[in-house]
Amino acid sequence: MKWLHKDLLDVSQLSQSEVMAIFETAGRFQELQERPVKKVPTLKGRSVILFFAEPSTRTKTSFDVAGKRLSADTFSLAKSSSSLTKGETLKDTALTLQAMAPDAIVIRHWCSGAARFLADRLDCSIINAGDGRHAHPTQALLDSFTLHQEWGDLAGKTILILGDVAHSRVARSNVILLNKLGAKVRLCAPRTLLPHGVKTWPVEVYSDLNEASKGVDAIMCLRLQLERQKDGLLPDLREYARTYGLGPRHIDLANPDVKIMHPGPMNRGVEISSDLADCADSLVLDQVASGVVVRMALLFLYMTRKGDE
Amino acid sequence: MKWLHKDLLDVSQLSQSEVMAIFETAGRFQELQERPVKKVPTLKGRSVILFFAEPSTRTKTSFDVAGKRLSADTFSLAKSSSSLTKGETLKDTALTLQAMAPDAIVIRHWCSGAARFLADRLDCSIINAGDGRHAHPTQALLDSFTLHQEWGDLAGKTILILGDVAHSRVARSNVILLNKLGAKVRLCAPRTLLPHGVKTWPVEVYSDLNEASKGVDAIMCLRLQLERQKDGLLPDLREYARTYGLGPRHIDLANPDVKIMHPGPMNRGVEISSDLADCADSLVLDQVASGVVVRMALLFLYMTRKGDE
Amino acid sequence: MKWLHKDLLDVSQLSQSEVMAIFETAGRFQELQERPVKKVPTLKGRSVILFFAEPSTRTKTSFDVAGKRLSADTFSLAKSSSSLTKGETLKDTALTLQAMAPDAIVIRHWCSGAARFLADRLDCSIINAGDGRHAHPTQALLDSFTLHQEWGDLAGKTILILGDVAHSRVARSNVILLNKLGAKVRLCAPRTLLPHGVKTWPVEVYSDLNEASKGVDAIMCLRLQLERQKDGLLPDLREYARTYGLGPRHIDLANPDVKIMHPGPMNRGVEISSDLADCADSLVLDQVASGVVVRMALLFLYMTRKGDE
Repeated sequence: MKWLHKDLLDVSQLSQSEVMAIFETAGRFQELQERPVKKVPTLKGRSVILFFAEPSTRTKTSFDVAGKRLSADTFSLAKSSSSLTKGETLKDTALTLQAMAPDAIVIRHWCSGAARFLADRLDCSIINAGDGRHAHPTQALLDSFTLHQEWGDLAGKTILILGDVAHSRVARSNVILLNKLGAKVRLCAPRTLLPHGVKTWPVEVYSDLNEASKGVDAIMCLRLQLERQKDGLLPDLREYARTYGLGPRHIDLANPDVKIMHPGPMNRGVEISSDLADCADSLVLDQVASGVVVRMALLFLYMTRKGDE
Repeated sequence: MKWLHKDLLDVSQLSQSEVMAIFETAGRFQELQERPVKKVPTLKGRSVILFFAEPSTRTKTSFDVAGKRLSADTFSLAKSSSSLTKGETLKDTALTLQAMAPDAIVIRHWCSGAARFLADRLDCSIINAGDGRHAHPTQALLDSFTLHQEWGDLAGKTILILGDVAHSRVARSNVILLNKLGAKVRLCAPRTLLPHGVKTWPVEVYSDLNEASKGVDAIMCLRLQLERQKDGLLPDLREYARTYGLGPRHIDLANPDVKIMHPGPMNRGVEISSDLADCADSLVLDQVASGVVVRMALLFLYMTRKGDE
Repeated sequence: MKWLHKDLLDVSQLSQSEVMAIFETAGRFQELQERPVKKVPTLKGRSVILFFAEPSTRTKTSFDVAGKRLSADTFSLAKSSSSLTKGETLKDTALTLQAMAPDAIVIRHWCSGAARFLADRLDCSIINAGDGRHAHPTQALLDSFTLHQEWGDLAGKTILILGDVAHSRVARSNVILLNKLGAKVRLCAPRTLLPHGVKTWPVEVYSDLNEASKGVDAIMCLRLQLERQKDGLLPDLREYARTYGLGPRHIDLANPDVKIMHPGPMNRGVEISSDLADCADSLVLDQVASGVVVRMALLFLYMTRKGDE
């Protein structure tokens, strides 16, 4: 398949067959990852800038591993080390990075729309690694890829997304992608953590977790961003954990072999019980492993799209 | 040309023919940078330590890209992560780094003379990436290389350096190099931002920007280091921008096709108007691209000087 | 020799012949380090995560150089950039890192037992780069390797360890390893800086440095962690330096050609006089060089132990 997109801004850009092409490529890389020597020369001589204006371990490291496994050179820019601290605009930083001639820039930024802003101005590929509350397409792709590896087709499955939907770019991108792949999506959250306009989303909304859990095939917990607590944006944690923390009794209400997911880092005992996080049906670590191969697939497809390999 | 210098401390060390050899090497690397795969095996197996005791994105990333494009391994040490925070002296840090047997150490340091201090004590090549207010030879070389790519010979051209000359190692190194290449240099700054002893420099000094702009072929803006403002070292910004900020009316006074330069990061609307920064005659992004290839040339020349490649 | 250990937690795990195998491997890598091009393809395609939850320049850079000299890919995680700041547990961070399929994780952590904690839970090799006050096996191995390069056999030699033993994982690991190699070990420290239970250690304890210095073959100074001073845990520095700072008069009491060692970074004028640090019998920089090759040997042995190279 010839890849035609320059940038990955959100999953809404992708057709279902393009998603399947990504999964197929990721599946081939996953086979390679089972060898003792996991590195392949596919992107030898190419370079990727990892520009993270928000702190992140797992996403940045995942892209770094993905890039180097393909033999690309990676360059990390964190906010604190960047010229941003000298008052430079995002546009100037981006143009400067592009003048160093990378093949792709992976960007995480606190501002919704930051990835599109760069995509409109730069010639190189932009991969959105999370922008504000807007989108986190690579997380959604790795989540669905993980389920695809378990189930094959996602069509007709019911997936519950649980937690602070209002502030979650992960939830937004997953709702779009899961619908695209034919799954039914439920959301469960206290009213204060539901986004405005959720009524127009292609989802069923629940406020009772017991009700929401009935008959689902997978539950995706969202991370409660405890950093927000000091702003008074979060409910009381104990009460939240009692009402919306995922525990064994919810699993009993779900379908047999219900899959448990979490994008990490987990607040064990808050949004998910520690036992569930580690149970046999937990896919939490599979998600991390999928992250590497899905990002390998994305770097490969976007960085060689010109056929100039 | 067999390269005889061990260290690059400032441009004053270089003969005109050595500068030309650097430009020629950089020109060859620039051709390579226009290929889809930009990496070459020239410095495979060599290692470069990037020791930055002052924050920097663009210079550090530029050296990092330059090193990896030549297949060298690069090692980044930032101030905050270094043993400096444990009270170790610069000398001990440097000797420790050398004991790990790198082929070159690139150093940026707040202390004027830091690069020479290392050069006198270490066997490996030292590349000065900016030391205090003293020198920034790689910036000067990339600035002149950028003009050389535009014009060919710089002899007889008139170049205006505008802004906070007093605190600028970029200005100091550029004055030396431009004179060496036969250009005429003008400085324009308010009196308080002119260095002591400027009367002995080989330049014409102006305090009026309109006068200074007349008939020049290129204008190099200096960055106003807004960090200094809290120390009361800077003039009022609005007044500064009105009097010394580069705008379209100055361009009208200069020669046709006058080139606009800035080492970045730019304070748009302070030392340069936003329109000029983006105009067709702006070389700001060319400077960034030149930075990579000039640093590739320097790493190549200094790291293979023993002919032991 | 087929390497059977999965993890390096402390030197107590190693038999004397295993230590000799490490030294022999390190010796072969040292010969390679004397070539102009020091890199070898031994671990090409392998990956090592450097997970440092405490600040460190020299140990992290040393492992980074060691890994890249063997052509492995290295991934640095520092505390500040890690999800630890988001409240994730060490276990979850570690499992996440493992899910990215590295061949080894090098860990430094403020908590004694952190390396064992990971080793018990992860399949990949864990190399302890210092855990709390417990152990620092790679430092002990490089210290003994440095003496081995000087002397050959360490059996029958007398080595004095001087300084803040109580808080030193370096001292603990060195006491074990030096005894294993047949050396006699003396400790010298003020009573307040001796650990509880030192009477059961296989050492002679001195409180007078003149007495302790008599007839020794090597003196290992420990770093006085000045960071502790604000907690009131350290003695008055001037008095300490006068009583326990190593100076020329102690060298006169020791054996001829007594070797001077320090793990760095040094507080010159506190635990060691500046002259001694730089004298001909100082092995301080040899220790740094040994650090790279000993860590190359360790990465090689632990990462290829399955014979799946």
